[in-house]
Amino acid sequence: MKLATLRVDGTTRAVRVDDETLIDLGASDVGELLARDGWADAVAAVDASTAKTYARDGADFAPVVPRPSKVVCVGLNYKNHIQEMGRDLPEHPTLFAKFADSLIGATDDIVRPGETEAFDWEVELAVVVGRGVRRARGADAESAIAGFTVLNDVTCRDWQFRTREWLQGKMWDSSTPVGPHLVTPDELPGGVRPTLDVRLSVDGEVMQQDNTGDLLFDPVDLVEYVSTVVRLNPGDIIATGTPGGVGHARDPKRYLTGGETVVTEIDGIGRLTNTVVAESGA
Amino acid sequence: MKLATLRVDGTTRAVRVDDETLIDLGASDVGELLARDGWADAVAAVDASTAKTYARDGADFAPVVPRPSKVVCVGLNYKNHIQEMGRDLPEHPTLFAKFADSLIGATDDIVRPGETEAFDWEVELAVVVGRGVRRARGADAESAIAGFTVLNDVTCRDWQFRTREWLQGKMWDSSTPVGPHLVTPDELPGGVRPTLDVRLSVDGEVMQQDNTGDLLFDPVDLVEYVSTVVRLNPGDIIATGTPGGVGHARDPKRYLTGGETVVTEIDGIGRLTNTVVAESGA
Repeated sequence: MKLATLRVDGTTRAVRVDDETLIDLGASDVGELLARDGWADAVAAVDASTAKTYARDGADFAPVVPRPSKVVCVGLNYKNHIQEMGRDLPEHPTLFAKFADSLIGATDDIVRPGETEAFDWEVELAVVVGRGVRRARGADAESAIAGFTVLNDVTCRDWQFRTREWLQGKMWDSSTPVGPHLVTPDELPGGVRPTLDVRLSVDGEVMQQDNTGDLLFDPVDLVEYVSTVVRLNPGDIIATGTPGGVGHARDPKRYLTGGETVVTEIDGIGRLTNTVVAESGA
Repeated sequence: MKLATLRVDGTTRAVRVDDETLIDLGASDVGELLARDGWADAVAAVDASTAKTYARDGADFAPVVPRPSKVVCVGLNYKNHIQEMGRDLPEHPTLFAKFADSLIGATDDIVRPGETEAFDWEVELAVVVGRGVRRARGADAESAIAGFTVLNDVTCRDWQFRTREWLQGKMWDSSTPVGPHLVTPDELPGGVRPTLDVRLSVDGEVMQQDNTGDLLFDPVDLVEYVSTVVRLNPGDIIATGTPGGVGHARDPKRYLTGGETVVTEIDGIGRLTNTVVAESGA
């Protein structure tokens, strides 16, 4: 199944994506839907022939979960990228945060703030949590994964490295597209440990390309690790880290200036297509 | 005015604290209250003689804002502590995050997880945001401060320093008392830049003692800085950093093991009194 949060008439609706038809699920967004016990069976049972529907063509997708209670992001996590940087594989995942106010929809403009000179991209596979868990292990952690979506962890590198903590480069308002929809693990090769090609291009030039099978800490590992520290709630998002090819690591460095189109995609899940819009003064 | 979130009959209520009487304000918690336009005048106008009231004696306080959309915390921020550590005063505040699931009430037990061997305390003045703002400056930033409360940024030092990002030592579930109430700036010496003695004791032994007048980045600076990066919403919390005297910096190091009573207080605001309860296996 594919689930999305659709913007309709100034509000939002949770929908099931059946090819070109979006089926209303009687919830205001995917976060509200995932908080319902038995959501998966209920969603599967919705009859497309009698439910309210919307056309996919021209659909305006909100962040797949508009107000997650937490967005936990992982630092370096692609093995070949860690090794090409000459580093040892870490024993523990590096975690940092974003807040819901950073999130935007799959085709929304990415706002480049006037305060940065180093605005960069990061394609990431994102886990969406489907059940409240704490200290989940094994099958319990696997079944806590509702599905996967695509996230571009857009970063102000100058602010990221102003101090020793990355947060202030990572939590900019309306910077982070996430969507267009969540795909349940049963539809993906590898299931809860999917093996999918990820790719990011800027104005058609491919900048990042890798496969999620190369993740050092896979989605189940991350649910286990994060839920050791803090409960995970339905709709919470874990962004699993980005592969090589970010602008800051290029020679010469390359940043987004405004006007570019960034396409962030994961085969089998979906694609984000966002225009970078520089705020005045940038 | 003093505002608090009171636990009553399995739910919560926002109250005004009038000495020994708690006045029901017709909102489920202080976060919901602060989201209402004109909350300050409305709260001031509630008539204690006709409103529903509760006794302060025996009151059970929830986190003053139970579900803030963000908790942004500041690293080293007391000038004398930075200088005694031999560091230069930083140009920018160091920011890290917590999530709402870390917060507990003013007399709740602090849960010491079985996974840590280095469980430490940090008294902090916390700003509560009273109005949605972005890029607030000057008077706009000052008026965005609803008031101040007390927060103990309890930290698992071993997890804080496992990787290069502090988050995983800072976001433990049910670790962080905040409250007991919010005090509006007009009741405090220094107003939105209050000059108040802060103090933390463990089983009666004073461990931290300083004055908020020594903050390098004061509350208004922090509202300006954080709101540059991301919008601040009513109920959001900014924890302003801790002075010297944490257990990890002592010689020998000293950590919480379970059974201790931690009193975290700021003169003119209030006091948190929490027992440390070690989870089984700790």
